[in-house]
Amino acid sequence: MTRLYAGIEGGGTKFVCAIGDASGKIYDRISIPTEDDPHKTLKNVIDFFQKTHLKTPLTAIGLGMFGPIDINTNSPDFGVISSTPKAGWNHFNPVKELRKTFNLPIGLELDVGASALGEYKWGNGKDVNSFVYWTIGTGIGAGVILSGKIMSDILLHPEMGHTYINHDKVKDPFPGICPYHGDCFEGLASGPAIEKRWGIKKATELPPDHKAWDLEAEYIAYAMANCILTISPQKIIIGGGVMQLQHLFPKIRKRTVELLNGYLQHPMILEDIDNYIVPPGLGNDSGICGAIAIAEEAFLTEKK
Amino acid sequence: MTRLYAGIEGGGTKFVCAIGDASGKIYDRISIPTEDDPHKTLKNVIDFFQKTHLKTPLTAIGLGMFGPIDINTNSPDFGVISSTPKAGWNHFNPVKELRKTFNLPIGLELDVGASALGEYKWGNGKDVNSFVYWTIGTGIGAGVILSGKIMSDILLHPEMGHTYINHDKVKDPFPGICPYHGDCFEGLASGPAIEKRWGIKKATELPPDHKAWDLEAEYIAYAMANCILTISPQKIIIGGGVMQLQHLFPKIRKRTVELLNGYLQHPMILEDIDNYIVPPGLGNDSGICGAIAIAEEAFLTEKK
Repeated sequence: MTRLYAGIEGGGTKFVCAIGDASGKIYDRISIPTEDDPHKTLKNVIDFFQKTHLKTPLTAIGLGMFGPIDINTNSPDFGVISSTPKAGWNHFNPVKELRKTFNLPIGLELDVGASALGEYKWGNGKDVNSFVYWTIGTGIGAGVILSGKIMSDILLHPEMGHTYINHDKVKDPFPGICPYHGDCFEGLASGPAIEKRWGIKKATELPPDHKAWDLEAEYIAYAMANCILTISPQKIIIGGGVMQLQHLFPKIRKRTVELLNGYLQHPMILEDIDNYIVPPGLGNDSGICGAIAIAEEAFLTEKK
Repeated sequence: MTRLYAGIEGGGTKFVCAIGDASGKIYDRISIPTEDDPHKTLKNVIDFFQKTHLKTPLTAIGLGMFGPIDINTNSPDFGVISSTPKAGWNHFNPVKELRKTFNLPIGLELDVGASALGEYKWGNGKDVNSFVYWTIGTGIGAGVILSGKIMSDILLHPEMGHTYINHDKVKDPFPGICPYHGDCFEGLASGPAIEKRWGIKKATELPPDHKAWDLEAEYIAYAMANCILTISPQKIIIGGGVMQLQHLFPKIRKRTVELLNGYLQHPMILEDIDNYIVPPGLGNDSGICGAIAIAEEAFLTEKK
């Protein structure tokens, strides 16, 4: 019998829940709004899975959560959310909440880690061992796959959205909107940053020839160049709301190559940049598919 | 009988060669100037090891080389140096040269990778699994240890010295000296960059209270913050000529914590930064000790 896994993609605006199997096939799914009250949100999540679980038992649960969240399984604070601007969610522990109902292996990763894993198993990361998955939308974050696994054995987890990029304040005096860092990458280039800078409602409504997009591509290219110079990934996948605008990709690729300026002598960068910086292969499903992969990993780890 | 390993730390101004064992003990060493002619330099290196090898056979050779150099053992260009400003060394292959004399396992890593490995085995990286080793001197570079190994399975290797940091051109109009990137980290903060900016002969001669050091610490702190936000190492070790100035450490630690601004809730950063950003435990010997460790690894890999 096919093992059924529960996948949860816990985001700031919605929780996507799905039941799937080890092949990445999804049998049922639901989208639940992220309420100010985390208990209320988790109750809705649990109700969805309980319906299936009572008929056909689920094997494990995989959770890809927005952060910062403690994903170190040896930590006393494992599962605890911290430093989030979503007030009600500070110090909340979604793993603990799920354990109250389900006596199952539960795997936890950062949302971007889950998306990276989804892309590694079934998306545009399939053909490489090591790559970086970025999401650029309401927030900016990145997940790193190294030798087929989410980068681990580290202090916390990557928070690349908050790295500082080269900000030319003469060209762009906008001070940035990150409550922690002002003009970090997220502070300058997230959807809300674009909206604040140009005084508009929705960033994606700006026409493709608006100068906003040259600036946006410039900032993204700085972050991609730094990412390449630091981790040297075999590929970069960029998803998220802002990146739905496909016209950004050629601009980002061109500018990243210019910023590296021939220093890294590798054909992927010098000749094949179109296949090096790419959109996600799973579209909007990288995260939820990754959550199911995390569930499978949790099951296999517990079985050992 | 104790196995003897040959370690070579190949730098832009000198080649340090040593004979040591698996415990990190060094029996003999020599420093050979890096000539414009690489063949001449390697001849001197080979002569040094040959003297011992003819009496007591060496087991393997480990090489930590300045880059960029192709360290991918599966590549047809394995061992080839590229994009170096040292004209005579471009396209030279030191591994091939060593093979002409020695029929031994030869391991190759970037100089900073070797230093990182040396610190992991016998220095200040001993008590962690994952950390970043930086060198800030004539050039700037970094090696990454993840789960006890030099980060591998990636496109090339880290070149973190060339990442772009936040350069406030109003505060510091100096355009940087990197021939590839202008005002990248190395272009702004290497020894020669300090010397050019302030019109002096030797950076380390500037008094500790000179404003040059606040600016230097600022740039280094930006790079450290980005490094922490990207790789999330369990520790950061900073060596190199500029870092001989111990008064830089407190400045760098303070400013790095300020730049992260409480976003990363980890006691190592919030409470124990003095033990998080540290000098090398092996002083100037991280690289040569690491080269011996690389030799041992090359032997163990070949034995399998």
